[in-house]
Amino acid sequence: MTTNQVENAVGRMIPAEINDKPVVPFPGVGKHRPTGRKYGPPIATCADYPADGDKRLPDLKAALIAAGLRDGMTISTHHHFRNGDLVANQVFEIAAELGVKDLVWFPSASFPCHAPIIERLKDGTVHHIEGSMNGPLGRFASEGGMRGAGVLRSHGGRYQAVQDGEVQIDIAIIAAPTADPFGNANGLTGPSACGLLGFALADSQYAHKVIVVTDNLVPFPCLPWQIQGNYVDYVVEMDVIGIPEKIVSGTTRVTKSPDRLYIADLTAQFCDAAGLIRDGFSFQAGAGGTALAIGNYFGDIMRRKGVTARFARGGSNQYLVGLLEEGLVEYILDGQTFDLEGVRSMRENPRHTDTSPFTSYNYHGKGNFASMVDIAILGATEVDVNFNGNVVTHSDGYLLHGIGGWQNALFGKTVILPIPLFRDRIPVIRDEVTTIVGPGELIDVIVTERGIAINPRRTDLLDAVKGSDLPIKTIHELKEEAERICGKPQAVEFGDRVIAAIKWVDGTVIDVVRQVK
Amino acid sequence: MTTNQVENAVGRMIPAEINDKPVVPFPGVGKHRPTGRKYGPPIATCADYPADGDKRLPDLKAALIAAGLRDGMTISTHHHFRNGDLVANQVFEIAAELGVKDLVWFPSASFPCHAPIIERLKDGTVHHIEGSMNGPLGRFASEGGMRGAGVLRSHGGRYQAVQDGEVQIDIAIIAAPTADPFGNANGLTGPSACGLLGFALADSQYAHKVIVVTDNLVPFPCLPWQIQGNYVDYVVEMDVIGIPEKIVSGTTRVTKSPDRLYIADLTAQFCDAAGLIRDGFSFQAGAGGTALAIGNYFGDIMRRKGVTARFARGGSNQYLVGLLEEGLVEYILDGQTFDLEGVRSMRENPRHTDTSPFTSYNYHGKGNFASMVDIAILGATEVDVNFNGNVVTHSDGYLLHGIGGWQNALFGKTVILPIPLFRDRIPVIRDEVTTIVGPGELIDVIVTERGIAINPRRTDLLDAVKGSDLPIKTIHELKEEAERICGKPQAVEFGDRVIAAIKWVDGTVIDVVRQVK
Repeated sequence: MTTNQVENAVGRMIPAEINDKPVVPFPGVGKHRPTGRKYGPPIATCADYPADGDKRLPDLKAALIAAGLRDGMTISTHHHFRNGDLVANQVFEIAAELGVKDLVWFPSASFPCHAPIIERLKDGTVHHIEGSMNGPLGRFASEGGMRGAGVLRSHGGRYQAVQDGEVQIDIAIIAAPTADPFGNANGLTGPSACGLLGFALADSQYAHKVIVVTDNLVPFPCLPWQIQGNYVDYVVEMDVIGIPEKIVSGTTRVTKSPDRLYIADLTAQFCDAAGLIRDGFSFQAGAGGTALAIGNYFGDIMRRKGVTARFARGGSNQYLVGLLEEGLVEYILDGQTFDLEGVRSMRENPRHTDTSPFTSYNYHGKGNFASMVDIAILGATEVDVNFNGNVVTHSDGYLLHGIGGWQNALFGKTVILPIPLFRDRIPVIRDEVTTIVGPGELIDVIVTERGIAINPRRTDLLDAVKGSDLPIKTIHELKEEAERICGKPQAVEFGDRVIAAIKWVDGTVIDVVRQVK
Repeated sequence: MTTNQVENAVGRMIPAEINDKPVVPFPGVGKHRPTGRKYGPPIATCADYPADGDKRLPDLKAALIAAGLRDGMTISTHHHFRNGDLVANQVFEIAAELGVKDLVWFPSASFPCHAPIIERLKDGTVHHIEGSMNGPLGRFASEGGMRGAGVLRSHGGRYQAVQDGEVQIDIAIIAAPTADPFGNANGLTGPSACGLLGFALADSQYAHKVIVVTDNLVPFPCLPWQIQGNYVDYVVEMDVIGIPEKIVSGTTRVTKSPDRLYIADLTAQFCDAAGLIRDGFSFQAGAGGTALAIGNYFGDIMRRKGVTARFARGGSNQYLVGLLEEGLVEYILDGQTFDLEGVRSMRENPRHTDTSPFTSYNYHGKGNFASMVDIAILGATEVDVNFNGNVVTHSDGYLLHGIGGWQNALFGKTVILPIPLFRDRIPVIRDEVTTIVGPGELIDVIVTERGIAINPRRTDLLDAVKGSDLPIKTIHELKEEAERICGKPQAVEFGDRVIAAIKWVDGTVIDVVRQVK
């Protein structure tokens, strides 16, 4: 980590190399020109696969050995089971048992349930993690425990990296709620039903070896084949692959906090006043308690105005499904289901469709639908006076969250962050965010319990709400208000060592996270 | 065409080069080892595509110009509209108008409606056709009219060739019964509904530029997105893209010929006697009048035995849909719909799923489902005493048919060809087929109106029907019987010039077709 550093387009110092690979510093939104061709995995032949389509092996260890597991490989998993995943830890336990070293773990995200991987990082089985590190793994990395640097990507950025060959997956392990012996799989049924398997799509398409692990084997054909068996090498049956109540674990209840409810209401009022809620519009809201409340307020406004949304982007949940079934939303384009109502709706309703980071978010495709969404409602740990946003570190410098689809959703037409002005008496609006995950030019509106700040670039929005009784303020006013209440926050001190890179949607590096002192 | 020739594994002389490209002679089933990696088309970036997802251009000419149409390019189309396609001819008319020369047309198949392309071959716009040539284009090629050699591939072989980069598509034109401005498309609705668009899947994934042409534009999102807009460059609206009554043009009535009905009955009896019709079995039957009758007989046997089929492989039609809706068939895995009942069922019934040459037939995948089909019922123009089959040329030497999925379906567990002993007083069983399209080792049973011949390799089948009252004969006996009635057929005389190559499913060349003298 003693390499030269260069300043990128948002003013952050970026090392020339991370994990001994050259880095392209973020040159600004839409400025990086990809060259070359998509990655081509090795050509397979049916001659090497059983004619009867039965690719089963007795257990995961047998499959990992058959897949040629060895030192230094890149091993991928998906996070549709969120904090209820029982498969990833087993993969690295087996690797440790086999004495394999220096693996790169490439999850679509990791969760607190993956804390046992810390032991695998310590014993040398795993070299580093490329992927979101929610909770303990992030803390461990922040404290300098990981030999390599973490590489964090958005969901779309992960697809882009695999498609473009920046990350070559040696072995993908795809935990599947339902699968057949050929490897066709979906997330719609079975005890570990999670709705869809879109986060594993790139892995299936591009990994050299693909292992499907299921606790609900059905005879061929497993339909719909969200994952296609034609990409799969081996199938393993296991008693149980996930903990159902932790799989659909998103915040599934509307917030009861009066402040949060007020922020949600204000967000919906803003959208209405700005003319964003009109017939055929589209929106994306997450699964947090505030976001759920906003969805409900949107429903009220649509009923009142007699308009419907052409589509909503999920994370689906009971509230969004309610809007679909009421006819207020024509389609749900769903990236992950957050509750069992979401799973049921996706299984039953052809207007509730599974999506993948390819269709929704891949920036190195011929467009994606994130930029078609009229209103994108997102969260943040911090925002700064230049409207830059942070979702990965806290103000104490610890890396505790993943990027998710956040960067990708910033391409929505109007991006709104409903956030509290402070959390635990720490201001959320800062002079500079600890980590820049999204550039301010893509963030349009900040809604807090003390007022709404509109990005000065969005003169159209400023004009639209002029004369309304909405509490419009400048971002500086909001920041000063927070500091009046909480005091001016102290700067965190970091060491020099880069413990994680934050990739932008195009594979360039928008910021790095340094070790906490 | 004066290059050296080598004998391939089925004894055919194959030139070392075809269209100036080196040729791999067929080395036997499963013997060719592919090396290298799948083709990677150029990496795109969303920065080059409209953020609002609207990729429409005013007309096909504008789209072809935008796609950079120029001399020598490879241009692809699909054949889901069969003889009712109105788009492909326009592409080459525009090319001629623009003075573009030496194009390679790479259709998934061509039909008599494409006869106007003969003029484009004559005027130099098109250099040669890689793809099935049904009817007039094949006749024109057989007579030496095409400058280059035709290259015929199976549906699976076409996917393989594109995936492996043997054919690099510069511009794919995908006629779509329904599409949105982003390029998402399906075949389920609209005046030109054809059910699915699977033949265009490879084109969408691998072509450098993709143009979707539709006469039924809907707002985003067009669901299901059988073709994903993330692969699409331009969208063009047109008044009419196909002639509906010619699109669903397969033989849609059960044969009334007593001989054909007898062959169908005998085929079903054979399957029953051989124990092939058992609970959970699977079958594939085409859309010809005889195949339809066999499907009906299968239904009768299933009802009598109280068994059901796990899946049937379509080409779907009203009869197969009837079996699905009666519950005798659990799933239809459909490659092309042959009538409007098939389209309706695919639109409405989640157990009737669209497939693509990738899932069903690609030999350079990690398996495909063709080899899982218990009973594959196929046709042939000729069969020889070594059970080699021909589906592309007639005994007069003319190239008049495509391969379709025929080669791919040969990987079924039991392959049965129900064929008449002679057509127009020309024997169908020969000492040697005019063109080897499928090797005898994969063809198990020939059923004719004068008896059934079982491939001696299939001792299991010979044993299974021993003692039945089925008219089992040797293939030599059948051939002699035909010759007693029709006389010994005269050999056709060919010139030296190779006018077409017949690819095997793995890209090797199993035979060539020479110019008719």
